[in-house]
Amino acid sequence: MSSYADRLAALRAQLKEDRLDGFVVPLTDEHMSEYVGSYAQRLEWLTGFKGSAGSAVVLPEEAAIFTDGRYTIQVRQQVSPTEWSYQSVPETSVAQWLKDNAASGARIGYDPWLHTAEWVKMATEQLAAKGAELVAVGKNPIDKVWADQPEPSKARLIVQPDELAGKTSAEKRHDIADWLEKEGADAAVLAALDSIAWTLNVRGADVTHTPVALAYAVSHKDGTTDLFVAGEKVGDDVRAHLGNGVRLHERDAFEDYLKTLEGKIVAVDPERSVAAIAQALEAGGARILKRRDPTVLPRAIKNEAEIGGQKAAQARDGAAVSRFLKWVEDEAPKGGLDEIIAADRLEAFRKEHGDLRDLSFDTISAYGPNGALPHYKGTVESNLPFKPGTLYLVDSGGQYQDGTTDITRTVPIGEPTAEMIDRNTRVLQGHIAIATAVFPKGTRGSQLDSFARRPLWEAGVDYAHGTGHGVGSFLSVHEGPQRISPVGSSQSGGDEPLQAGMILSNEPGYYKQGDFGIRIENLVLVVPVEIAGAEKEMLGFETLTFAPIDKKLIDASMLSAKERDWLNAYHAEVLAKIGPQLSGADLEWLKDQCAPL
Amino acid sequence: MSSYADRLAALRAQLKEDRLDGFVVPLTDEHMSEYVGSYAQRLEWLTGFKGSAGSAVVLPEEAAIFTDGRYTIQVRQQVSPTEWSYQSVPETSVAQWLKDNAASGARIGYDPWLHTAEWVKMATEQLAAKGAELVAVGKNPIDKVWADQPEPSKARLIVQPDELAGKTSAEKRHDIADWLEKEGADAAVLAALDSIAWTLNVRGADVTHTPVALAYAVSHKDGTTDLFVAGEKVGDDVRAHLGNGVRLHERDAFEDYLKTLEGKIVAVDPERSVAAIAQALEAGGARILKRRDPTVLPRAIKNEAEIGGQKAAQARDGAAVSRFLKWVEDEAPKGGLDEIIAADRLEAFRKEHGDLRDLSFDTISAYGPNGALPHYKGTVESNLPFKPGTLYLVDSGGQYQDGTTDITRTVPIGEPTAEMIDRNTRVLQGHIAIATAVFPKGTRGSQLDSFARRPLWEAGVDYAHGTGHGVGSFLSVHEGPQRISPVGSSQSGGDEPLQAGMILSNEPGYYKQGDFGIRIENLVLVVPVEIAGAEKEMLGFETLTFAPIDKKLIDASMLSAKERDWLNAYHAEVLAKIGPQLSGADLEWLKDQCAPL
Repeated sequence: MSSYADRLAALRAQLKEDRLDGFVVPLTDEHMSEYVGSYAQRLEWLTGFKGSAGSAVVLPEEAAIFTDGRYTIQVRQQVSPTEWSYQSVPETSVAQWLKDNAASGARIGYDPWLHTAEWVKMATEQLAAKGAELVAVGKNPIDKVWADQPEPSKARLIVQPDELAGKTSAEKRHDIADWLEKEGADAAVLAALDSIAWTLNVRGADVTHTPVALAYAVSHKDGTTDLFVAGEKVGDDVRAHLGNGVRLHERDAFEDYLKTLEGKIVAVDPERSVAAIAQALEAGGARILKRRDPTVLPRAIKNEAEIGGQKAAQARDGAAVSRFLKWVEDEAPKGGLDEIIAADRLEAFRKEHGDLRDLSFDTISAYGPNGALPHYKGTVESNLPFKPGTLYLVDSGGQYQDGTTDITRTVPIGEPTAEMIDRNTRVLQGHIAIATAVFPKGTRGSQLDSFARRPLWEAGVDYAHGTGHGVGSFLSVHEGPQRISPVGSSQSGGDEPLQAGMILSNEPGYYKQGDFGIRIENLVLVVPVEIAGAEKEMLGFETLTFAPIDKKLIDASMLSAKERDWLNAYHAEVLAKIGPQLSGADLEWLKDQCAPL
Repeated sequence: MSSYADRLAALRAQLKEDRLDGFVVPLTDEHMSEYVGSYAQRLEWLTGFKGSAGSAVVLPEEAAIFTDGRYTIQVRQQVSPTEWSYQSVPETSVAQWLKDNAASGARIGYDPWLHTAEWVKMATEQLAAKGAELVAVGKNPIDKVWADQPEPSKARLIVQPDELAGKTSAEKRHDIADWLEKEGADAAVLAALDSIAWTLNVRGADVTHTPVALAYAVSHKDGTTDLFVAGEKVGDDVRAHLGNGVRLHERDAFEDYLKTLEGKIVAVDPERSVAAIAQALEAGGARILKRRDPTVLPRAIKNEAEIGGQKAAQARDGAAVSRFLKWVEDEAPKGGLDEIIAADRLEAFRKEHGDLRDLSFDTISAYGPNGALPHYKGTVESNLPFKPGTLYLVDSGGQYQDGTTDITRTVPIGEPTAEMIDRNTRVLQGHIAIATAVFPKGTRGSQLDSFARRPLWEAGVDYAHGTGHGVGSFLSVHEGPQRISPVGSSQSGGDEPLQAGMILSNEPGYYKQGDFGIRIENLVLVVPVEIAGAEKEMLGFETLTFAPIDKKLIDASMLSAKERDWLNAYHAEVLAKIGPQLSGADLEWLKDQCAPL
């Protein structure tokens, strides 16, 4: 395996050969996916950075890596300061840095299959101010020098049964057709992998932790869809399921197909599709209508079948997590436990309790100071053994065919300090403030975010991430468009009105750098709320996730009567839902955990 | 006095003469003021609409008036449906309506001294889609047909003493110069009247309820300023105060002066200046740098002298309001009281207690159903007599040389219903949630807004206005840039980070249409908050307004211990600050009002 310095040198040599004075390396794929297949892990290959968001720029003499506040520490641990300078977003950006550092007249390369058209437009303007040029490359230069780049996955598609999807693919495609009619468009490009999987009621295994297949689709106003996917991945069962309304093409026929849409009005989502798609449509003479992908909102608003599936998945998942928490409590004092052993054991519990298809993301199994990194991704090097006197934070989830889960619990290893109990109690108060919120239809997630922070603010502390993200149905664990986060934060979605049927996480936290981290996360479902005398349609949350919240970390005297009632009612429900799946010592432990405070 | 139908006909005849196919009538002035002088009340003259925000469009056959949700009822009471169609913003807009209704090829007039350049650009684009044109008029056609249009005020300028301003005009002008240096600009246009008054430490009396003078200013990077104001308004004392650093010109020399700035880089605030200013600068060959008016933020962040003045003004104002509330309690049962008599008596109390220069806005003296109109502006026609069985809402404020006040109290007339007590208690809980909020530096007003709504949301109700607006120092009672309001609402400012020294109102409410209205409003000052163990710079609010909150409308059983403590502590402070100014029965009444709950 070549060193990172060698890789950077090889890329620079290639750029020279390609007559480029620089190259931009984002961490995404041709579908603007959040998690990408191993073939698309170009940023990690080049720099060693293992975080889930970032980008890099390589110039002849300089190279810079760009990460946000979540990765300030991690990027310095994983990426060599000899070759790379560390840049923080949003204080700077790739385009801003290029404007400041690229030479006048420079030709800076970018891969049009890895950037949105809006980014290209913006970066082109910034570079123009410097007399430099942004140049689309044909083949990505990293792919030319990455000798052992993995092949894109060959995993086969599977059918997502109608009884779990709650709506047939034909119905969904006709909804898209109705939308196209209303918008005055002929066709819609679906470039986001979860949009395609959801629309066609299929799933795949091409992207880590997200059950989607590498594909593109174009849906038409007659209700038919052209699907572009490697033919070898499509078995007879999937062909039969797709039926006549879906025409199959090889994935690499997509670009040429786009060029055939002359004169058509084609809806394209500027956030969820890459520049190359717009460029191909324009080259072919189609007219682009910028619209949000029409599947985004119907996918976020879960139907009865999806909600039922989610609840069934949660019950199994909660049993696995509960058994795991007891296991940690038993094993930690014996010694020999570490983050990796614990994460593996948790995965094994999940497999025992259900048909686990995948984890929904890399388990954050974070002991002590590692827990203070909200997006910690454990490695052999960072792995810590469990010793008493701090906290263990475990954020994990499963992909089941009927639902996607995401849960965080924090437990003491040994005796917790008064500070840990105070902070955890405030995080719990914030969690309860979201769980019990009632709000008028039309309220945006940003309007709820501060409810979760107020108990922490009162102690002069806060957490540097959003309070909640959307979650898919056997799809992405981070699914838009809704979020509970401040408007103006780096994560968009806080301005999306919440609607009944949306699922979000509720996950306030507290992080003491170098010491410990706390997060309490359940998924919640937006539901209508009936209130006598109400003058508006009101909404609230139904909690979906069931596993005990550790009472050893709660100062009951800090809780209001309402907060205490919520916790006791929640634990009663945990016992009712999870208890029947446990037995013996596990069940006794659960009863104890769920006893009223 | 001509009828409104006659006025519309006269305008249409004038438009024909001016070869225009339509005209846009906003409610603003050459300074984008919120409140405007009587000469600029063109919308009211044309339509009869007395609200504080709205606009109109006149076409040959159609005429439309545009108002927001606050004025849905009022516009129908004041404006004839025979001549006018009612349009709601933001559902539609002037530009959207023109696009839908103007004839292809139409020439639609606008007065470039009454619209921002951004509005002109946007509306021009909308009309172009229809093949119609937006045309700047020379003289406003309404002014040509408004026979008895008032002259602009001739009120003289007065000096705002340095000990009240807290900073000399020379210091403020050098701060602007430093800012120009940093921005790489030569000069800044100050078009907002409060910006000019604040910068030069002068006040005026040209605009209703806002102590500003009609003027323009251009500040330069040498610290000097060119001031354009009617010479007859400037006495020797003001000339001496302004000194050599301020060059005086007649107000109507401003446009020609702008055309002399060839080659200069001139900062212009796109929100706070009209299109004619940008057009004159461009015509003269200056380069425009779009920047927020550099005085906006320093004006919003009050200095020690301004805070001291505000507190002194509040103490006097609170004594006047307290005596008034007792007077209402005494007089209402006797009969004969009505909204106008009450408002007049309140103004008289204010005059007794201090050197009242003006009201800070038209008193909202709203009995019963009129209280359900959050921005009710009483008239002889709408005036209601006080009869028992409902609520009286009074929202009022004074302009004193040391500060601007704004306070709302709601009191029962006769016996309140359980519903009134429930709603008022929730409004109070929301008010307390803001008053006691603690938040990290950098927090925006939008992040606090929902704290005030949550107790109402829990009963399925809400209020359709923001929770708080900024307030000036002997300047505008609505002063930007900060607000406490949801981001995305019609009122901007919720995205401005709060900073220590800013003053805002805290005014949640509840409105039951046709029945009663409730609002509890105090002003609050953003202050640093020290918390042991805090990891961030924290801010909170210090309440500035002192007058009793009626306990007859509070259900003590709904309050938490913390809420009750806040109310009792607040009332103790009311008694301490206001009590020494009262005597006899007034003082006894105040003691009773301020007794602990």
